[in-house]
Parts: sequence; C-alpha cells; structure tokens
Amino acid sequence: MPRTQLQEKYFAPAKTENIKITPPAWQHPVYTEQQMNAIKVAHRETKTWSDWIAILMVRQLRWGMDIATGYSHPNDEARKQGSYLGLAKIRSWFGRSPMTERKWLMRFLFLESVAGVPGMVAGSVRHLHSLRRLRRDNGWIETLLEEAYNERMHLLTFMKMAEPGRFMKLMIIGAQGVYYNAFFISYLMSARTCHRFVGYLEEEAVLTYTLAIADIDAGKLPQWQKLEAPEIAVKYWNMPEGRRTMRDLLLYIRADEAKHREVNHTLGNLEQKVDPNPFVSEYEDPSRPHPSKGIENIKPTGWDRKEVI
Amino acid sequence: MPRTQLQEKYFAPAKTENIKITPPAWQHPVYTEQQMNAIKVAHRETKTWSDWIAILMVRQLRWGMDIATGYSHPNDEARKQGSYLGLAKIRSWFGRSPMTERKWLMRFLFLESVAGVPGMVAGSVRHLHSLRRLRRDNGWIETLLEEAYNERMHLLTFMKMAEPGRFMKLMIIGAQGVYYNAFFISYLMSARTCHRFVGYLEEEAVLTYTLAIADIDAGKLPQWQKLEAPEIAVKYWNMPEGRRTMRDLLLYIRADEAKHREVNHTLGNLEQKVDPNPFVSEYEDPSRPHPSKGIENIKPTGWDRKEVI
Ligand SMILES: [Fe+2]
Ligand SMILES: [Fe+2]
Ligand SMILES: [Fe+2]
Ligand SMILES: [Fe+2]
Repeated sequence: MPRTQLQEKYFAPAKTENIKITPPAWQHPVYTEQQMNAIKVAHRETKTWSDWIAILMVRQLRWGMDIATGYSHPNDEARKQGSYLGLAKIRSWFGRSPMTERKWLMRFLFLESVAGVPGMVAGSVRHLHSLRRLRRDNGWIETLLEEAYNERMHLLTFMKMAEPGRFMKLMIIGAQGVYYNAFFISYLMSARTCHRFVGYLEEEAVLTYTLAIADIDAGKLPQWQKLEAPEIAVKYWNMPEGRRTMRDLLLYIRADEAKHREVNHTLGNLEQKVDPNPFVSEYEDPSRPHPSKGIENIKPTGWDRKEVI
Repeated sequence: MPRTQLQEKYFAPAKTENIKITPPAWQHPVYTEQQMNAIKVAHRETKTWSDWIAILMVRQLRWGMDIATGYSHPNDEARKQGSYLGLAKIRSWFGRSPMTERKWLMRFLFLESVAGVPGMVAGSVRHLHSLRRLRRDNGWIETLLEEAYNERMHLLTFMKMAEPGRFMKLMIIGAQGVYYNAFFISYLMSARTCHRFVGYLEEEAVLTYTLAIADIDAGKLPQWQKLEAPEIAVKYWNMPEGRRTMRDLLLYIRADEAKHREVNHTLGNLEQKVDPNPFVSEYEDPSRPHPSKGIENIKPTGWDRKEVI
C-alpha cells in the first residue's frame, strides 16, 4: 500500500471545520549530531539477584521476539553478541533469510508497540500509590509518562512507512494484553526489578538500532539510502534541514533508547519511595555534570545513587 | 498532629546531598480572580440513555460518600439540591452534626483521592489503544493525564493541613481498589459514558467547594478565617501575594473542578476515535472564542461537537 493511502487509513483525522492542528504533547529535548553519534552499545553488569531476574526476562523476551519478527543476525558481530544460551542455533532452524527493509520495519513496529507499555504502567502505579498513601511522588511520574509518549511516537513514525500484515497485528494485540498485565503486577511486586528490566531491554534496543544503522552504511538496505523521514518525525524531533533521512531518524531513535536505558538503570538504583527523580531535579552544584532531560551527560549504565541523591 | 510534624511524616524527601528541589511536572495555567469568582454551579441536562447511566452512577457514589465522610448539608439550599431520591432522609438517620473544618477537610481528602483515578485510567487506555491499533491519539492523552496530576495536587495540598484517621485511610485504599478497576473496565466498554460520568461528578465537586466557600463567608469555619494556604499550593497555582488564604485556595480548586467539568462534558460529546482534542488544538479562526487550557472561555456544560470540531 503506498504511503499516502496508509496515511488515510491510520492517521486521517476527523473532518474538522474549526481545528487547524493538534501539536504533540511533550516537547522533545534537542540532540546534537555529535551527541547522537557518540551513543554506544553498552551493558551494565548484573550485581544482585534482582538484576539476574531482570536480564533473564529480557533474554527470554528477545528470543520470542526474534522468532516472531523473523529476525536473523545481520552480521557476524551481531551473531556473536546474540548467541548466549545457544539461541542462534535454535533460530537457525527457522531459516536465516537476510534482513530486508520490511523485516527491519516489522521488527521496529513490534518492538515499539510493547516499548510504550512500561512507562505508562510505572507512571500509573506511582500515581495510584501517591493517591492511596497520601504521599508525594517526588517527580518520577512525569519522566515515566514522557518515556511512554516517546515510545509511542517511535511507533507512529514507523507506521507512516509500512503497514504490518494481519498476523503481525494480531501478535501486537496479544502481546499487549499479556505484557500490560504482567508488567503491572510485576511493578506492584518489585518496581526496582522492573526498572532494571527496562534498562536491560533498552540495551537490546540500542543494539538493534545500531545494527540497522550499520546495515544502511554497508549498503544492504538500498530502499533506505534516499528515504526521507516522515513529517511527523521531522516535527517531533525538530530535525534540521539536510539531516532528515531514514539514517538520521534512526540516530534520533537510538539516542532516545539510550536515554531510556540510562533513566531506567538509574531509577533501578534508587530508593523507590523516598528518592526524588534525578532527571527533573535542580542540583546544589549545577556546574558539576548531573542527570538531565537531554543526552549531554548521558551515562550508558546509569548513575549510582550516591552520585545523584 | 501539628502541621510541621505532618510534613515530616508524609512529605519528607530522602536526605539529599546533591538535589536542591524537584519542581512540579505540569505548569498550572493562570486564573484571574475575576474568572474564578465567575465560576457557577451548573447542570447539563441528560439527553441520552448513556447520560442517564452516568448521572445515576454519580448519585449513587455521592450517597455512599456522604455517609463515609459524615457529610451533612451546610444550609437549606444545599439540602434542597441534594434531596433527590430522598437521600436526605436516609442520611438523617445517621445524625446531622454541622460541618466543621475537619469534616470538610476529610470530605475533600476522600473526594480528591478518587478524583485522580479517571484521568489516569482514560489516559492509559487511550495510550494502549493507540499502541495496539497503531493509530494516533489526536492529543487527548495529554489533557487527561494533566487532569489526573491536577487532582493529585489537590489531594497533596489538603494533606498538608490534616491527617485522616485510620478508618478514613482504610476507606481511601479500599475505594481506590474498587474504583480503579471498575473505571478501567467501564472505559473499555464506553469511553463516552465515562466522560459524561466525570462531567456530572465534577458538577458535584463544584457544588461542594461552592458550599464550603459559602460556609467560610457565613463565618461558620472560624479556623479558616486566617489560615494561609500551604507552600505547595502557593507554588503550584502561583498564588499572588495577599491572596493566599484558605478561601483563595478553594477558589482555585473550584475553578479547576469547573475546568474538568467542561473538559469531560465536551469529550463526552465527541467521536472518541477520530476527533482531535479541542483543548490543545489550534483553531482556523483564533479570534472566535474556543476551548483552551485556561478558563477564559469556560463553558459550564461543555462544548457541542459542531462548535469545536
Ligand atoms: Fe522506542
Ligand atoms: Fe525505549
Ligand atoms: Fe479535585
Ligand atoms: Fe475534578
């Protein structure tokens, strides 16, 4: 289906007589090209039992998702990185066709449709908690909801480029039903483990987008060489003129994922009930590098509690 | 318990070495004194079956809450307004002691602890819907989450003034458990009816705060004559110097409730899946009065669909 028709089907607003435009809810912070190029694949070491539970959950999910989205490792390095637990072998039974533009897009779509869940759940639970216990939240909710919004913008951006098939749509619906409820209950049980889990999940997301960018650079995705980012993306990220290709778009999204990785690994280090949110706070000594909304001081494996509280 | 000790118990942040302050998430729009004084008790007529279901739910809830918070009508006019279905009579069995400062505060606390639920549920459901159906949301989520935040600020403000007893705390927890789940399921079934329900609920909220203000003016609440609004409120509403009394605070909160009344009655008039959110949109003809975030063009019974879309 051509892109214009897709727009009609998924994005057509009501025929409005009075309304001109409805702008996005949250302003995206500005990222420079240099900052985005500096984003690296990274891994935070597991230290506690809770960390182990989190990473095992991520591996299991990744395994399921790789099968669901027909993923095959685009290159040898990726194969090496993804071969813990011998999953590469199991996956090989399903055949190993190379990653095409469409396969990448379907993977992104699926990934982003579940990525929007944890922030909304965590924000809701903390909100309910504050109402019920009659205590302040210390600024966490804002960042969590903004994360959920950001993930949803990733999804809507990819939706401007391709429509998933029926099977994929069904899987997205099914995955949300399971994931939303499971994450809700898990967050009630151990919020810390859940933030660690998202931190590890975002490590995978940064890896995925890094490999896709490498595929573009290796000339393996010819349709994306000249592809312009859709208008929704240009507006949301405020993409400067001359830097609005598909590759640029993936750089922005990868940086967002790296930001979520930092935020969630940091939140996983904090006292959930009493610590303020370091990403929206003002600091005693503003001249020292400290967490913020942007990526100027980004720490791939998160900030330790004693560095920020 | 004196107010300073209350603060320690409910609001003490972690002992931070690095963090100075964590500012509120959403900026509150500016209300002028004139605008706030113009807020009136109002009632939108029931037109459809869905409207009837919504108002019956509200009446039932109000009945339960009046008993729970030991409410008695502060004056004859209120008694008249609240006497549908003969509830006043049933209530009289429970005795009718006059409303004291503490009874008002307990009523506000309970009211606000449930008032923060619908916006968060509606925002979550629309977010999940957008992820699952791969469609845009058209700007609703932002307003719904901001409403939830605003209600939570009402609650935290009242918490600065009085601590509820054990029984009340238990009721708050129990009410949330029932209400959150019931509202979630209801919103999945009929979002329209739910917005209408909140619209009618906010009619009651405006009435409640109007009566409390009248009680202050009638000299029935001597402890509030000179009471200053807590700092959290002064900051959040940006209350100007010289207008920071308890009465001023109730004027702000009543205006917020009137805003929710307008927003939810309007959203209840719209096509849930396709219409953009009139409260954050830009208009073809900005010179004509149109919905906004503030209360300069507030419509007590909401905007009709054809006026705004
Ligand atoms: Fe994402
Ligand atoms: Fe992410
Ligand atoms: Fe309220
Ligand atoms: Fe309200």
